[in-house]
Amino acid sequence: MTVSREIRLKSRPVGTPVADNFELATVDLPAPGPGEVQVRNLYMSVDPYMRGRMNDVKSYVPPFQIGEALQGGAVGEVVASNDPNFQVGDIVQSMLGWREAFNTSAAPLAQATAGQAATITKLNTYGLPPQTFLGVAGMPGMTAWVGLLKIAALKEGDIVFVSGAAGAVGSVVVQIAKLKGHKVIGSAGGADKVAFLKSIGCDEVIDYKAEADLTAALARAAPTGIDVYFENVGGAHMDAALAAARPFARFALCGMISQYNSTGEMYGVKNLIAAVGKSIRLEGFIVSNSFHLLPEFLQDMSGWISSGKLQWKETVDEGIENAPGAFLKLFKGENTGKMLVKLS
Amino acid sequence: MTVSREIRLKSRPVGTPVADNFELATVDLPAPGPGEVQVRNLYMSVDPYMRGRMNDVKSYVPPFQIGEALQGGAVGEVVASNDPNFQVGDIVQSMLGWREAFNTSAAPLAQATAGQAATITKLNTYGLPPQTFLGVAGMPGMTAWVGLLKIAALKEGDIVFVSGAAGAVGSVVVQIAKLKGHKVIGSAGGADKVAFLKSIGCDEVIDYKAEADLTAALARAAPTGIDVYFENVGGAHMDAALAAARPFARFALCGMISQYNSTGEMYGVKNLIAAVGKSIRLEGFIVSNSFHLLPEFLQDMSGWISSGKLQWKETVDEGIENAPGAFLKLFKGENTGKMLVKLS
Repeated sequence: MTVSREIRLKSRPVGTPVADNFELATVDLPAPGPGEVQVRNLYMSVDPYMRGRMNDVKSYVPPFQIGEALQGGAVGEVVASNDPNFQVGDIVQSMLGWREAFNTSAAPLAQATAGQAATITKLNTYGLPPQTFLGVAGMPGMTAWVGLLKIAALKEGDIVFVSGAAGAVGSVVVQIAKLKGHKVIGSAGGADKVAFLKSIGCDEVIDYKAEADLTAALARAAPTGIDVYFENVGGAHMDAALAAARPFARFALCGMISQYNSTGEMYGVKNLIAAVGKSIRLEGFIVSNSFHLLPEFLQDMSGWISSGKLQWKETVDEGIENAPGAFLKLFKGENTGKMLVKLS
Repeated sequence: MTVSREIRLKSRPVGTPVADNFELATVDLPAPGPGEVQVRNLYMSVDPYMRGRMNDVKSYVPPFQIGEALQGGAVGEVVASNDPNFQVGDIVQSMLGWREAFNTSAAPLAQATAGQAATITKLNTYGLPPQTFLGVAGMPGMTAWVGLLKIAALKEGDIVFVSGAAGAVGSVVVQIAKLKGHKVIGSAGGADKVAFLKSIGCDEVIDYKAEADLTAALARAAPTGIDVYFENVGGAHMDAALAAARPFARFALCGMISQYNSTGEMYGVKNLIAAVGKSIRLEGFIVSNSFHLLPEFLQDMSGWISSGKLQWKETVDEGIENAPGAFLKLFKGENTGKMLVKLS
């Protein structure tokens, strides 16, 4: 018998989540049954999109259920196996984060908790640390790649603006645009993030916390305008980008973290009318709709990493009991690069 | 010597234009010079986009100048010609509306007033009344066709929502979508427009003036959601469309007439965040960027008209002195179909 601790949704957050929305529980894990494997998680991911799943509303992923363990990306190690395809010591990836260990079969699980095919896949790490497959080489990295290259359709000469530029997604967007030779303006909050963005080659950095007028700040940083906007933040950032956009600009709408915890009226975007006169295209996207491009992404990304063209940063908290706190940091902007929780 | 009356911009409107922003002037027109023709306008067009040109701001068309005659689409008849390519009686199209008559050469005029190539082209009317080339067979019709078929990329099974549906552009959008077999929801203001929309086959009509909550009204009219939104109005219509959109909806942003006269803060669009979760694409467009598609448009449109599949409605005022009033009607919603001024 193995003991595993997990984080459950205790109550649905209203506005900004607080520690009391989560509870730590301990479960006894039996030995894996026939065909099952037991996995001990090494790292779990916390991501802004999880906030949406805490609301009881229909969305592109079903809501988390109160009293049940949360879910999310994780990498772990097989510690016991009754499946000939998995050996003890194999590194696997799953959506069964927010817990220390679990039993599963590699076949899709019953749709018990989330209507979602939950399973594990063996990870060929190509020599990279396994947790990078929760970041730069995983979902956030692919989100950056899809949004910039496929949705915004980056082309020669484009000037690129990225909000949330020091985050797991944004910092990859900045670097892909730079290695392809573009001028890049990044927005982030605080001196540490500004320094990080400069260290990865961002041409102009806007510290939005130090700017009373984001539209004016972007106009100064990009006096000739922008052609591509990678949207992670929403609110005043969107209005600033619309004001700065040149004709035929393309906006990849990845997320709007400033709005996720809104309880009253959402921020009203006032400059959308600019999209008419300037023929701007704004396109929302979800990376899972582009998973057929995974091989192309991994080929690009592994090449950039092995040639030293792409760096990453992690903010790591330790212990399952600190997972809710790590999640809350996302909304306070306390992470630089990928926010992770180390579990063993 | 011919006398021609014209409408000049007397002062730039602040907010909603008023009669006093315009002045009627009389000019003496000499006989046409060498290579020139003299044209007497039959009809001139008033269009919402002209409001933007009355502001002194950079946009996709240069601003009108105070003290000079306004410009806009017109059809006229050649009354004198020193150009062997034009005969007296030829019907021509130009951007020299807002005046009764003018001399010009068919070659692009000097860029004197507007930085724009102003010229005349002979019209093959295919037996249609010439003023239809200011409406259904002209710029508004092509705007509808481009926006619906190229920008929103209408495809089988799409449910279509059109705002400003009884207008020159909207009423063509409704009919193209209907003749292609789609369910269409139209929004317009007032009983006459509602009746007109029903007469051209619109499946559901929302009288927005009678609805306190446009989002709820659209949810009732389109209980399974919308796939395409053709945006002419902006404001609350945009929020309603974002709320009703199904995954992968496409929005063609043609105009936002509700916002053109705004003097204070623009309406703030609160539901833009829905574009992320539902992978919505919003794309602004200007028909002049698609003029290379004119032959394809004319082939479609002439076929639809000659087979009786497409109807149109005109609201016609008479006399150059009434042109400002006709223009102002656009913002009061007092036109059904194409708003025109008959000049002779």
